[in-house]
Amino acid sequence: MRNLLLTLSFDGSEFHGWQMQKNAITVQQVLSDAIFKASGERVVLHGCSRTDAKVHANMFCVNFKTEGEMTTDAYVGALNYYLPYSIAVKSCRQVDDDFHARYSCRQKEYVYLIWNAKHRNPFYKDRAFHYPYPIDINLMNEAAMSAVGTHDFTSFCASGSEVGSKVRTVYSAKVLREDDFVKFIVCGDGFLYNMVRIMVGSLLEIQGGRLEYKTLKEIIEKKDRLAAGFTAPAEGLYLNRVEY
Amino acid sequence: MRNLLLTLSFDGSEFHGWQMQKNAITVQQVLSDAIFKASGERVVLHGCSRTDAKVHANMFCVNFKTEGEMTTDAYVGALNYYLPYSIAVKSCRQVDDDFHARYSCRQKEYVYLIWNAKHRNPFYKDRAFHYPYPIDINLMNEAAMSAVGTHDFTSFCASGSEVGSKVRTVYSAKVLREDDFVKFIVCGDGFLYNMVRIMVGSLLEIQGGRLEYKTLKEIIEKKDRLAAGFTAPAEGLYLNRVEY
Repeated sequence: MRNLLLTLSFDGSEFHGWQMQKNAITVQQVLSDAIFKASGERVVLHGCSRTDAKVHANMFCVNFKTEGEMTTDAYVGALNYYLPYSIAVKSCRQVDDDFHARYSCRQKEYVYLIWNAKHRNPFYKDRAFHYPYPIDINLMNEAAMSAVGTHDFTSFCASGSEVGSKVRTVYSAKVLREDDFVKFIVCGDGFLYNMVRIMVGSLLEIQGGRLEYKTLKEIIEKKDRLAAGFTAPAEGLYLNRVEY
Repeated sequence: MRNLLLTLSFDGSEFHGWQMQKNAITVQQVLSDAIFKASGERVVLHGCSRTDAKVHANMFCVNFKTEGEMTTDAYVGALNYYLPYSIAVKSCRQVDDDFHARYSCRQKEYVYLIWNAKHRNPFYKDRAFHYPYPIDINLMNEAAMSAVGTHDFTSFCASGSEVGSKVRTVYSAKVLREDDFVKFIVCGDGFLYNMVRIMVGSLLEIQGGRLEYKTLKEIIEKKDRLAAGFTAPAEGLYLNRVEY
């Protein structure tokens, strides 16, 4: 028995997220089918995170256990052949038996991409959030940096989430402009359901003066989802890096 | 009567180029229909260039004459409403009566985008040429720069083209790497049919040692399409800038 780790990237616009579900096409389903076609084996896939519908990944990790004989290189070749263009396998390697793509993860980085120009960008349909109003990057960046640290992020968790502890550590958070794009880059040990998207919605409202708070820190202290801003749409969100 | 100049950007992957034709969807057709919906007028559209099927434009200029009363701002708003997401109107302004988007053009810049990594990039399907082999950027850049100047570009014109003079001036040409992307950026007073794509194919063959020539200049001197390399695929090509 080997425990194999796949590293993928995928354009999430055609998928209903990672996790398998009835009546919807998910990355897990499509990958599971491709592994079956490649190796004849039905394996149990463990993904590094449950991304939402339409969320993208520049890097996404998956592990599975196999009794098969296929080499790791053969997996890469065969899976890229059987998968649609929207999912690419970058690498496959053997890992320790107790490695788990989700639970062994030490750190994740997300990037949220905003197209900040008056008119839409034809190349970023479903790949960035089009926000056509002026953005004050300095205000937004200062507000973002205040989230760094270990906090109870209840204010930034979608209501209805049944996770246990809502304490997470954010290692870094910043906002920067690259021409007409604005990027929010956040790194932490884990993220609650919709946490990054609610941070982005709050940051946009903060810089526009439409929230009574000036920093994410002030919102964190309220421990109330209603203190935060709107949930920015899924299409701007990219899982960018996963560290073990 | 006013002569109006529209500046567009478009994702060419769903279009059979600019120019109207039977039984195929083109940018000119879709734009003409949108103008009709917006203003009730059927106008004659003059595009700055005849882009091929699947070629993209970060900037594309179109002029047309109108007897209508709509303001230029109203055109921008209404056209962005009626056009598909894949075409965006960035601006509309009135120009001199004798202005012609194609014939008044002084300079055009094209960018050719290569995804140079072993495995595909899900975000660049139909938006870059996937070339998975190593590329020697220095060799390619030196070979590219040799094309600068006024030359007869017969070697870089698709056979069957019926254009008169094949003399064009290239103002600048360079190749650079940005992570796993390689970009060829070329600026000139005009380009022959498939000229940029044949330059890219030739540059790739030159750096790989698969052509008997070392620079574009040597190929130019042959005045023979057969001396040049393959025609790189359309999906990597972007009309990037048009100057009047």
